[in-house]
Amino acid sequence: MKVYGDGLSGNCYKIRLICALLDIAYEWQEIDILNKETHTSEFLKKNPNGKVPLLELDNGECLSESNAIINYLAFGSSYLPQEKLSFAKVQQWQFFEQYSHEPYIAVARFIKKYLGLPEDRRADFEATHEKGYKALAIMNEQLAGTNFIAGDDVTTADISLYAYTHVAHEGEFDLSGYPEILNWFKRIEGLEGYVQMAAK
Amino acid sequence: MKVYGDGLSGNCYKIRLICALLDIAYEWQEIDILNKETHTSEFLKKNPNGKVPLLELDNGECLSESNAIINYLAFGSSYLPQEKLSFAKVQQWQFFEQYSHEPYIAVARFIKKYLGLPEDRRADFEATHEKGYKALAIMNEQLAGTNFIAGDDVTTADISLYAYTHVAHEGEFDLSGYPEILNWFKRIEGLEGYVQMAAK
Repeated sequence: MKVYGDGLSGNCYKIRLICALLDIAYEWQEIDILNKETHTSEFLKKNPNGKVPLLELDNGECLSESNAIINYLAFGSSYLPQEKLSFAKVQQWQFFEQYSHEPYIAVARFIKKYLGLPEDRRADFEATHEKGYKALAIMNEQLAGTNFIAGDDVTTADISLYAYTHVAHEGEFDLSGYPEILNWFKRIEGLEGYVQMAAK
Repeated sequence: MKVYGDGLSGNCYKIRLICALLDIAYEWQEIDILNKETHTSEFLKKNPNGKVPLLELDNGECLSESNAIINYLAFGSSYLPQEKLSFAKVQQWQFFEQYSHEPYIAVARFIKKYLGLPEDRRADFEATHEKGYKALAIMNEQLAGTNFIAGDDVTTADISLYAYTHVAHEGEFDLSGYPEILNWFKRIEGLEGYVQMAAK
């Protein structure tokens, strides 16, 4: 199978991380977002939404949306619980990530790291901080009670939330007031097979 | 079990609709979003993110995020396929909904219907239209090839996307150019057990 992704993107890193943790082999095709390689006609045939990551299976079928992809890859493993409520909690945190976390924490980082924080994006950048800190506070509260985000076992929900949280400082978020999150980072970084995000 | 929700909210309607289709009994607790009833200390104990819908099980455990809730309720039914790739496709469309659809199509409706389109929100309102129409075009293209959004069978992904799409006109989206979506509405509205969104 083939993964189309941008090495700097947290959403794409989720795929690399779950593959490393579960020892899944794949081919990586680097896609440059800023160079609009997600908007070529060839790419749009694979994902009409023009986004990475994208998983292409050997039979040519494609799957988009980072959290759907990691749940597909982790299906049947300990990273995706099969019990109904535990499984629903994993999804709850993944939808939280995409709606209440990524649009603030990842977007702040994108504006700073990818775009270099241009003046005409400063208001957008600053607006991400209030809601981003709210998401961090909710995570910190949860992690005060459980070892991992959806309970005491590591799941794909941790992969989903770790991806952008551990580089939140690149969007000028200060994590020093969130000790439970910092301890959770260490638990994830100690997992067998853990790989770091690519650096460019 | 008890569902906390706002009768006008599409995210809350998803729960009502799947319960009607699967004949699941529940108690409904109306929550007024505009009156900040999602931000009382009592409610925040149940969902620290301060959002409806919220499902409270008889043992007191709570589950948030509309799509996680409907997947929990549909678990084991024909609305949630168990085969790995089919199941991943359902999630793909649900994450698409929360990231690329709801923030535009539901937000336009919120600004118009809940807030009455005040002048200081007009720029936000208009900004939702470009990306909202992009989401509608992607859905229309998919529905040209399959009866339902994730394939030929109805799934929870249809519930997720139907909720706000069928009231998109309340945010001034014109659906007349999206015939596959209009036909898909009829297929959903013909399902046994279908219920309409509450009117206030």
